Amino acid sequence: MLNSETAPGVGDIPPETFRAAAHRAADLLADYLEGVGRYAVLPPVRPGEVSARLPAAAPEAPEPMETILEDYRTLIEPNVTHWNHPGFMAYFGITGSGPGVLGEALAAGLNVNAMLWRTGPAPTELEERVCDWLRQLLGLPEAFKGHINDTASIATFLALAAARERSVPNVRARGLAGRPELGLPTVYCSDQAHSSVDKAMIALGLGLEQLRRIPSDERFRMDTSALRAAIEQDRRAKRNPIALVATLGTTSTTSLDPAAELAEVAAREKLWLHVDAAYAGSAAICPEFRAGFAGWERADSIVTNPHKWLFTPVDCSVLFVRDPAALKRAFALVPEYLRTPEAGVTNLMDYGIQLGRRFRALKLWFVLRAFGAEGCRARIRAHCALAQAFASWVAAEPDFEVCAPVPFSTVCFRAVPDVSAREQDAFNEKLLEQVNATGEVFLSHTKLRGRYVLRMAIGNLRTTEGHVRRAWDALRNADCGMRNAE
Amino acid sequence: MLNSETAPGVGDIPPETFRAAAHRAADLLADYLEGVGRYAVLPPVRPGEVSARLPAAAPEAPEPMETILEDYRTLIEPNVTHWNHPGFMAYFGITGSGPGVLGEALAAGLNVNAMLWRTGPAPTELEERVCDWLRQLLGLPEAFKGHINDTASIATFLALAAARERSVPNVRARGLAGRPELGLPTVYCSDQAHSSVDKAMIALGLGLEQLRRIPSDERFRMDTSALRAAIEQDRRAKRNPIALVATLGTTSTTSLDPAAELAEVAAREKLWLHVDAAYAGSAAICPEFRAGFAGWERADSIVTNPHKWLFTPVDCSVLFVRDPAALKRAFALVPEYLRTPEAGVTNLMDYGIQLGRRFRALKLWFVLRAFGAEGCRARIRAHCALAQAFASWVAAEPDFEVCAPVPFSTVCFRAVPDVSAREQDAFNEKLLEQVNATGEVFLSHTKLRGRYVLRMAIGNLRTTEGHVRRAWDALRNADCGMRNAE
Repeated sequence: MLNSETAPGVGDIPPETFRAAAHRAADLLADYLEGVGRYAVLPPVRPGEVSARLPAAAPEAPEPMETILEDYRTLIEPNVTHWNHPGFMAYFGITGSGPGVLGEALAAGLNVNAMLWRTGPAPTELEERVCDWLRQLLGLPEAFKGHINDTASIATFLALAAARERSVPNVRARGLAGRPELGLPTVYCSDQAHSSVDKAMIALGLGLEQLRRIPSDERFRMDTSALRAAIEQDRRAKRNPIALVATLGTTSTTSLDPAAELAEVAAREKLWLHVDAAYAGSAAICPEFRAGFAGWERADSIVTNPHKWLFTPVDCSVLFVRDPAALKRAFALVPEYLRTPEAGVTNLMDYGIQLGRRFRALKLWFVLRAFGAEGCRARIRAHCALAQAFASWVAAEPDFEVCAPVPFSTVCFRAVPDVSAREQDAFNEKLLEQVNATGEVFLSHTKLRGRYVLRMAIGNLRTTEGHVRRAWDALRNADCGMRNAE
Repeated sequence: MLNSETAPGVGDIPPETFRAAAHRAADLLADYLEGVGRYAVLPPVRPGEVSARLPAAAPEAPEPMETILEDYRTLIEPNVTHWNHPGFMAYFGITGSGPGVLGEALAAGLNVNAMLWRTGPAPTELEERVCDWLRQLLGLPEAFKGHINDTASIATFLALAAARERSVPNVRARGLAGRPELGLPTVYCSDQAHSSVDKAMIALGLGLEQLRRIPSDERFRMDTSALRAAIEQDRRAKRNPIALVATLGTTSTTSLDPAAELAEVAAREKLWLHVDAAYAGSAAICPEFRAGFAGWERADSIVTNPHKWLFTPVDCSVLFVRDPAALKRAFALVPEYLRTPEAGVTNLMDYGIQLGRRFRALKLWFVLRAFGAEGCRARIRAHCALAQAFASWVAAEPDFEVCAPVPFSTVCFRAVPDVSAREQDAFNEKLLEQVNATGEVFLSHTKLRGRYVLRMAIGNLRTTEGHVRRAWDALRNADCGMRNAE
């Protein structure tokens, strides 16, 4: 009974069963990606409905793969929000492209944990190489070394951990508590920065009160004078400014902080400069977009997410660091069982908090090769052109207005019926609900200067001008009870 | 040119290209999983060799999927460490089982980010349900709610963050620095606990000096009296004991801390009790192994990794928490753009530091259904039986000794040639190198009480008695220059 070759019910599913199921899965994937546009973007499902159709307990006996795949097709696939739908224009539009999906599938088969070079030689070296390909595409200096994390939230957390390590003596060993000699470590970002900066402040024990959210200007860019004043005031109060987070492509409007000015401030004040370019970084592969990024090459760390706008399935977030040793100083710990004889190799576990590491480089390699650099640029440009077209339609329509500049592929806009400000907000909220209920499109919202604003975020490879036009028609034709043009 | 339907070079790869490539990938996966045993477990590749075969820059023009998949087959697949190999017995043996691989592939196609219920209804509800299936299989009380993280490192970090939140007033807002009124928040674990506890201490700003590594007894279990004494001493020193990490299945020897005793201490001392059962938790699906876990049902949080010993591809780590609101209090932040109209639903982003969340429940659902509960138990039992068999062979051989009890599927052992202690260590190190160089098996090592010890960790579904026997033959026949039996 010890030998799984001879014991039925032990071992993996039989090879011929797996092969047949894998081909069935290949067709399910192909059918889905080809036909996803036939679904409503937001599935018409109420909370609890899926749950009610799932058994209360795991089955005791094995179930056939055909049954499982069929349940996937009938219960799961129709009840997801279709991020791969051409009408998905909420948050940031993303695409799990075909090449990326296949890279992920093959990585799952290898099931490598590349925590050490020894436990994943090709994964480690491919990750270094493909991050360097991306670095070159973005026009960043050779000094930046990239590695892949799951999310930008983790990347920003790691960057601020490195900043803390650099500026708080012996913080690894002693921590932050019970050290009256420490000035309060203080971090700066704009009022448009992502909530992941807040989460990092909480996680690192720095505290939200030590995050200075600097006001942004009328174009939603961090106000450098206000930043300088805040730092000066904090220094006078014996605080310890340690880091500055510049956002290039903010979540609400995709605005760009003035990176060159902020790099000057960071250099003079000896702050760790972290650039959050999670969404918009991908645009820097097109030279014509680089001007907005000028100055980021002076950062200490930059995060950009190929899983956002470089057609790679979640998760794949690249963190470029000028001094990878700084990350190692913050986190590296090598217990005995992970000591290996190879000298001078990269051990990816040294750069972060997670020990386990999936082989995420494979899918990014597939994407960059399948589309080629020129193909990636063409797709980014197409998305930006669609956004510009939409913005021009909105601007030409008296009942609507564009609410922020459109540097990339995301448009903030709203209806402006001739009613009070509060009623306008309510109108737009209702408009969003109605448009999303059509199933043709999924838009999201934000607040800008206290006002409710809609967002159209283009980033899906399947999105065409036709989809954008249908979204626009839905917006104009929605009946929200107080169209000012009627 | 705005319409990607009509613009070549924009959009995803053509559907027919994708379908053909997906079927090719299905065969690559099936060939790999069927034939992985033909590879050397550790690939015969030197640092830099893969890198040297990769172009220095991304291609400008698109490359055909066939070329990319062929490069995968010839350059990547042969140069990974084969975690799915039946002779992989290092660290903890794992398996990316066939059903799990297909679940991962389909999840990649959906590319859902289930940060909110709204952005992934079925993924959110399936995650809750499948975690509850696992809870029942493990025999844990209904009070535990599970969610899936990438790694146990993150889970332990979240648990200790929740402990910090509970015991340090207003830590979210104020952080830890500059608060002389705070007693030093202090955490306890055994000297056998995983390095992820150390990393969490660093990350959270608590500092390594605030981690008390309590000595373990001769069976590598935390010594409860020593724990009690340490807490008492710390309280006298005005420290603030906040959490206790019990390990059920330590990394070196898979020893089990006395959970019932530790639960008593935690209750009396009002410590957050976190149980790290990343590896061994899976064994609790077999009632006959439950005795060793007794007391864990009183924990505040428990982490177990289906990606370790429940046949699910990395990453899939389940964190069970008795009071999920504690995690929310520690981390939840809802920026305007993520406010949704659904009331009372679970939004998975609230439970951790990462905003983005992959659809990891699908693969675990596939695994639990394809094998069934009884099939999962049979496989765990088969692995434990193989380990017992190996341990009995080692024990029967005068030149070798078993170095720790074998509660599960991992055996710590070493050769004991008749030489000095230092020479014994060197001998075992050389023995490990030689055996691993055969390509038939990959073992790892640890240090126990300062001595170099080998580890055989069984956890792959393809591992049979034949593989274990070949490993044993390789160990006995290695020529390390000073066999005491010769």
